[in-house]
Amino acid sequence: MAGSRMKLELCRVAQGRSRLGVLKGLGRTGQHSLEVPGCLLHTHLGSVPHLTQDTLHTLSNLPSVTQVTLSNIAEHQDVLEEFKGGFRKFAGLHDTVLYCSLHDPATPSPTGYTTNKTVSVWGSGGRIELTVAKFMALQKSVQPDWYQSMADGETWQNGTSRKRVRKSVDRTLAHLDECLLLHQKSQELEGVDVFGVVEGGDILEERLRSARETAKRPVAGFCLDGLQTGCMEQTLRTQLITAVTKELPEDKPRLMQGVGRPDEVLACVEAGVDLFESFFPFQVTERGCALCFSFNISPDPELAGRALPAVLELDEARDTTEETQQNGDVNLDDQTQMTSFEIDLKDKRYQDDFRPLVEGCGCYCCKNHQRAYLHHLLVTNELLAGVLLMIHNTAHYHAFFGALREALASDKLELLKRRVLGERGGRKD
Amino acid sequence: MAGSRMKLELCRVAQGRSRLGVLKGLGRTGQHSLEVPGCLLHTHLGSVPHLTQDTLHTLSNLPSVTQVTLSNIAEHQDVLEEFKGGFRKFAGLHDTVLYCSLHDPATPSPTGYTTNKTVSVWGSGGRIELTVAKFMALQKSVQPDWYQSMADGETWQNGTSRKRVRKSVDRTLAHLDECLLLHQKSQELEGVDVFGVVEGGDILEERLRSARETAKRPVAGFCLDGLQTGCMEQTLRTQLITAVTKELPEDKPRLMQGVGRPDEVLACVEAGVDLFESFFPFQVTERGCALCFSFNISPDPELAGRALPAVLELDEARDTTEETQQNGDVNLDDQTQMTSFEIDLKDKRYQDDFRPLVEGCGCYCCKNHQRAYLHHLLVTNELLAGVLLMIHNTAHYHAFFGALREALASDKLELLKRRVLGERGGRKD
Repeated sequence: MAGSRMKLELCRVAQGRSRLGVLKGLGRTGQHSLEVPGCLLHTHLGSVPHLTQDTLHTLSNLPSVTQVTLSNIAEHQDVLEEFKGGFRKFAGLHDTVLYCSLHDPATPSPTGYTTNKTVSVWGSGGRIELTVAKFMALQKSVQPDWYQSMADGETWQNGTSRKRVRKSVDRTLAHLDECLLLHQKSQELEGVDVFGVVEGGDILEERLRSARETAKRPVAGFCLDGLQTGCMEQTLRTQLITAVTKELPEDKPRLMQGVGRPDEVLACVEAGVDLFESFFPFQVTERGCALCFSFNISPDPELAGRALPAVLELDEARDTTEETQQNGDVNLDDQTQMTSFEIDLKDKRYQDDFRPLVEGCGCYCCKNHQRAYLHHLLVTNELLAGVLLMIHNTAHYHAFFGALREALASDKLELLKRRVLGERGGRKD
Repeated sequence: MAGSRMKLELCRVAQGRSRLGVLKGLGRTGQHSLEVPGCLLHTHLGSVPHLTQDTLHTLSNLPSVTQVTLSNIAEHQDVLEEFKGGFRKFAGLHDTVLYCSLHDPATPSPTGYTTNKTVSVWGSGGRIELTVAKFMALQKSVQPDWYQSMADGETWQNGTSRKRVRKSVDRTLAHLDECLLLHQKSQELEGVDVFGVVEGGDILEERLRSARETAKRPVAGFCLDGLQTGCMEQTLRTQLITAVTKELPEDKPRLMQGVGRPDEVLACVEAGVDLFESFFPFQVTERGCALCFSFNISPDPELAGRALPAVLELDEARDTTEETQQNGDVNLDDQTQMTSFEIDLKDKRYQDDFRPLVEGCGCYCCKNHQRAYLHHLLVTNELLAGVLLMIHNTAHYHAFFGALREALASDKLELLKRRVLGERGGRKD
C-alpha cells in the first residue's frame, strides 16, 4: 500500500511452514523492527497492567510494538481529539511502535451487535457502535503506526451457520475496502500500515475465500480472527491456518488473534503464524498464578539443571489439574481457567516454599522474593502481588518467545516442544 | 531499657513545644537515624501497597523506618517460625529499621474483643486473640528492631465510660509490665526497643496517670493511642496531647497513632508529637485521589509561583467539599472521606486536563503523566492508576514532612500552616 514500509524478511522456514525472520520498517520513521515469531506488548489503555514504564523497562527482550485496542480507547475519542498529540503521547509512551486493534483479546465481547454498517466495541461505559467513518476518525485521533481494519468477527461460536459465516467474510471485505478508501484520502494516515482481517469461522472454503480476497487488497499484513482459544480445538485450528497461510503472500506477516497458551502458540507457529498478542501473562497474573513452564533448550547441563526444580513442581501442579478435569471436557469457553503452564501461588503448598518462582529466572520478582512471600501477599489480598506476578509472567513469556526463535534458528523446535509440553523428568523419552 | 540505643537529640524546640531533632541509634547496629518531626513508612505485610522496592526507591526522602503491623503478620506466625530469618528478610526488605505495631492504622478493628488477658487483631482470615505470651512469641519470629507493647486501646468511641477508660489504662500498664518481663528474659530480643502505650480516652486524669506510669517503665519511647482521626476534634486532641507530653521525658520520642491528615499533623507537632504513621497517602490513593496541597515555604518567587495552579485547582475542589458538608457535621467516623488536601481525579473536570498532578513535582508520575491520563485510567479501572497515584501521594506526603522540618528549622511554621491550611490566593492576608 502507498507509503507502507513494513517488510518481512524471512531468514529461515523450518519444515516448510515455521517462519523465522525480522519484520522491518516499523513505525513512522521505519526505524523499528520486530523478530518473528514474536508477540506484541499487550496493554490496557497503553499501560501494561500494574507496571509503570520504568518497571517495565527493567525487563529485557520486550517487543518494540505496543498493542492498544479501540475497546479501551473509543470512549475517550473527544479527549484525544482535543489533546491532538495522539494516543502514544497521551499515555506517556515513548520509543515504541503503536499497533491499534479492534477488541481486547483478554476480555471477550458480547456477540449479536454487528450490523452491515457497524461493529460494536465495549468500553467501561458500555457499548460503542462504530461505523467505518467513526472507526477511521478514531484512528486519526489515536495516530497509530499500524492498525487492524474493521471486521465482523462474530463467527467464533460453535455452530455458527454457513450463511452467517459467509456474511461475516463479505462484511469484513466490504469494511476493509471502505477503510482503505478513507485511509488513502487521509493525509494524517500517510505511512500508516493496515492489516486486513481473515475471517471464515470453521468453514474451510470461507477461510480460503477470505484469505484470497484480502490478499488482493493493498494491506501490509493479515490478522487471523475467529480462531481464538476457547472456540475450537487446536487440530482444527491448525488445519484452517495451514490452508489459509498457503493463500497468503510469503513476505507479509500473519498475526494470530486471541491465542496465547504456549502449546497453542507452538502449534500455530508450526502452521505458519508469525505474530501473537501477549495477553496470556496478564490472565495468568489475574488468577494469582505464576508462569513456571520450562523452555530451556540450552546444552549447558548446569543451566538445564537449574530449571529442574520448577519443572518438577509444575508436574505436581499438572497432576492436580488433570485430576480436576477428569470428570469433564476442557471448558473451551473459559479462558480464565488455570493451565498446566503455571502454578497457583494461593495454594497452601507454597506457604512455606522459600524458593523463587522459577530457579535461575533473572526478573526482579525472582531475584528479590520467594514463593512463600507471594503466597502471603495473595492470600491477604495485598496489592503488590499483582505487580510482582506481572513482572515475572511478562518476563517469562517474552523469554519463551526468545527461546522459540532460538529453537527455530538452531533446529531445536522438537526439543523445545518437549520441554514446553512437559517432558516428565525421565518418564517419557 | 537494657540494650536500647535509641536516643532523641533535639536541636530546637519552637514555641515551647514543637520539637525538631534526630532520633539516633536505630536498628540492631544502631547505625540508622530518623529526623523528627517525621513519619514511618506504612506498609501492608512489608510492602508499600502497589510499589516494588525498586519503584519505591526512586523516591527521595523516604523514612529509614518501615512499619509493619501484627494484624497483617499474626496469621503467618508458623511460617515465620519455620523461616527463621525474621520478617524483614521474609518480605525481601533490605536496609531498613523494622518497627512492629499492633494494629493497622488504615483499617480500624472491631471493638469489644479485649479481655484482661488478651487483645485481638484482625487478619484476612479473621480474628486472632493474643495473650502476652503469644504476642511476645510473635515478636521473636518477626525480629523487629522496635515494637509497640501490647495495649488495650478500645476507648476511642465517643461516650466510653470513665470505668472502661480506667480499666484500659490499668490493663495497658499490666500488659507492658508483662511484655517487659518476657522481653528482658529473651536473648533474641536483646537490643530491641519497646514503646509503651499511653491510653486514657478523652479523660484528662487518666491520660496523665497513663503517661506518668508508663514513663516510669524502661521504655524507649511512647505511642499515643486512642486519639486517632475520627474519634475526637483536634481542639480536644491538642489539649490532651499537650497535657500528656508534659509528663513524658524530653529525650524520648512520642509516636502519634492514627493521625495522618496534614492539618492534624501540624496541630499535633505543635502539641509536642515527634512521629507519625504514613497511612494517609495510601487512603488517598485508594479513593482515586491525588495529594495536591501546597507546602511551599521557599522564598524563591519562581518556585512559589509554580505551585499556584495546583493550589487554585484545589480551592475549587475545596469549595465543592464544603458545599457537600453544609447539611451536616463532618463525619468523624469515616476516614475514607475525601479531604481538602487532595483532588478527585475521577471527576469529569480532569478528563481533558493535560497538566501533571502537581506542577513542579519531581515524582515519576508527575514527570511522565497528565491528569487526563490518570482520569482515564481510573474511570476504566486500569490497574496502573493505583501504582501511579501511590508513587505521587507517597512522594508528596514525605516531601510535606521535609518542609515541616525545614519550617521548624527556619522559624516558618506559621507560613507553612498558612500554605497547608489553604491561604486562598490573596483572599486572606
